[in-house]
Amino acid sequence: MTKYFGFTLLRKHGLARRGIVHTGRGDIRTPAFMPVGTVGTVKGLYLNQVKETGADIILGNTYHLMLRPGAEQVAKLGGLHKFIGWEGPILTDSGGFQIMSLSKIRKIKETGATFQSHIDGRKFELTPERAMEIQRLLGSDIQMQLDQCLEFPHSEKDAEKAMELSLRWAARSREAFGSQPGRGNFGIVQGGTNERLRLKSADGLRQIGFEGYAIGGLAVGEGQKLMLQTIEFTAPALPEDHPRYLMGVGTPEDLLESVARGIDMFDCVMPTRSGRHGQAFTRFGRINLRNAKHADDPRPLDAEHSCPALSQYSRAYLHHLMRSGELLGMMLLSWANIAYYQSLMQGIRDAIDAGTFEDFRAATHEQWKRGDVAA
Amino acid sequence: MTKYFGFTLLRKHGLARRGIVHTGRGDIRTPAFMPVGTVGTVKGLYLNQVKETGADIILGNTYHLMLRPGAEQVAKLGGLHKFIGWEGPILTDSGGFQIMSLSKIRKIKETGATFQSHIDGRKFELTPERAMEIQRLLGSDIQMQLDQCLEFPHSEKDAEKAMELSLRWAARSREAFGSQPGRGNFGIVQGGTNERLRLKSADGLRQIGFEGYAIGGLAVGEGQKLMLQTIEFTAPALPEDHPRYLMGVGTPEDLLESVARGIDMFDCVMPTRSGRHGQAFTRFGRINLRNAKHADDPRPLDAEHSCPALSQYSRAYLHHLMRSGELLGMMLLSWANIAYYQSLMQGIRDAIDAGTFEDFRAATHEQWKRGDVAA
Repeated sequence: MTKYFGFTLLRKHGLARRGIVHTGRGDIRTPAFMPVGTVGTVKGLYLNQVKETGADIILGNTYHLMLRPGAEQVAKLGGLHKFIGWEGPILTDSGGFQIMSLSKIRKIKETGATFQSHIDGRKFELTPERAMEIQRLLGSDIQMQLDQCLEFPHSEKDAEKAMELSLRWAARSREAFGSQPGRGNFGIVQGGTNERLRLKSADGLRQIGFEGYAIGGLAVGEGQKLMLQTIEFTAPALPEDHPRYLMGVGTPEDLLESVARGIDMFDCVMPTRSGRHGQAFTRFGRINLRNAKHADDPRPLDAEHSCPALSQYSRAYLHHLMRSGELLGMMLLSWANIAYYQSLMQGIRDAIDAGTFEDFRAATHEQWKRGDVAA
Repeated sequence: MTKYFGFTLLRKHGLARRGIVHTGRGDIRTPAFMPVGTVGTVKGLYLNQVKETGADIILGNTYHLMLRPGAEQVAKLGGLHKFIGWEGPILTDSGGFQIMSLSKIRKIKETGATFQSHIDGRKFELTPERAMEIQRLLGSDIQMQLDQCLEFPHSEKDAEKAMELSLRWAARSREAFGSQPGRGNFGIVQGGTNERLRLKSADGLRQIGFEGYAIGGLAVGEGQKLMLQTIEFTAPALPEDHPRYLMGVGTPEDLLESVARGIDMFDCVMPTRSGRHGQAFTRFGRINLRNAKHADDPRPLDAEHSCPALSQYSRAYLHHLMRSGELLGMMLLSWANIAYYQSLMQGIRDAIDAGTFEDFRAATHEQWKRGDVAA
């Protein structure tokens, strides 16, 4: 079998796109939500559960894995897939976002980023070349360029500088990626919420040429409205025949609205993180299981959902588990949320296939708006 | 179907006993280890995993459940089985042990125990009658009498007083249990490590008459040698045709040696608690996965075990998960430990069936002593 990486655009409905990302480790049906396996585990879930919810691909964090257990260590153990027991595709980010959000005493130079580990204060340097080397050592199927992420808000001048640096790093990342059959290398559009900068970034990346294009630097505090506006002018500047990945986004509403604006791929820690804190995402909107009103409620979160976490555990029991600080509560709600996210993506894909995406979008918003079923 | 509670002694090998406890919710193969589902969850496991490891029965804690969510609340939600989703038998303790070990400002009177909740300081009274009422509300299949537990060490005089009070509470518990077809009520032998007191307690309980007999007040700091000695003179004083339950015990070694002295049933938080802290129990002895020597080890804990947690995850990955504080590490090691405990009990049962228990006992000790397989 020749290993091949590519994208097939199957169908469009308005700007919404239905496609397949082909990788050497299997296909990814798009629009796709990628559960985040930060340090090599989707927090609180067994990977067979992740698979059964319908996820074709998961994500790993270069920043976390380079610090512990280390890229060379993972390679020695046979690569990330073998290390964690996941046979499908894995996307790794490049570390840029976590250097901005997690690390201590960071310094950005032309050559790369130096920073201190948030775990033990050890010093590290991450250049575009090293970021690609780490992802190659991990054996990642989709490898992201190193980029410079900015906190929000920031000046236009800072956004422009970071975008220009990210473009130069993109060229170096692309060079370092080299030829890896069956694997893809994605560039990352930066430029804050500024149209001129975003278009310049997109244009620069297209000139370099990547297997896919990501929109980075969003969902960092600018709010949904500005985020969607930014997608509206950025997505059309990306090549039609390559996948588009909106990094680190988001709520179910964010996903649906971003698909409507031409995005194909998403990742976010929200379903697992919120699950650990007692919040469930459902087709009835968000439900906080810590709320006392659930204490007497024998109904499951969603009796019609195929995931046991949503359909086979009472709200009263979930409430009790969360109030008691039990692992099983965190496990069940993380599972339920990943399952809901995946069923939302399946619904989106089916609707685009059927040419009914706009109806689906309206009906889904309507049901979220109606809120939870009455007690 | 008439609901029936009883015990069938199938076979003996030395003092080791192979039997079946029949309950209205199914049979329990003995010798049996009962995983502890403290507040209504075996910490870190799905109940179908617990079932698949071979557990016929789990335990719930009256003390914890009476505080949260409350016995009347569980009853309103259909009972403990329905609340947590476990169809097999459940044994509940009476709360005596947790009042001693967990609660604040406790006072023991002839009528019962008053204490403050360790959660919020609320005051509670637990009488023998209320302990039985709570267990009936929970719908427990094996209900324990209320007893007074003592910390170790204690004077003989205190042990005698507590034992005598526990006997009077036994009579009141038995009376309060009444008639519950398919369910059993167990008395608890007290008396510390003192033979005279233990025999007096056992004799008193036999005169009252229970469906089963427990040995309480052990594994509280007296050490394995004194514990086994106490079992040696206590077990023979218990009726041959009823199950014998050693409460709160213990390590795999404790289980094997107690079976050899005539014990049929066990419960302990050790497999799940130790698992959450990175310690695995295996046929090669105890293995601390936090130890740096596992960082490079691609082998599973026990390649030949049927449980995926033991056979399908590398020590290197388990080490990484524990060092990273990941939920999945706690989940896997809790699962692995419950699975090992259950396979040990299955080995014990098979050996008694085959008349080879002494060989099994010696071989098991030998393998524990040889320790872990070389790296």
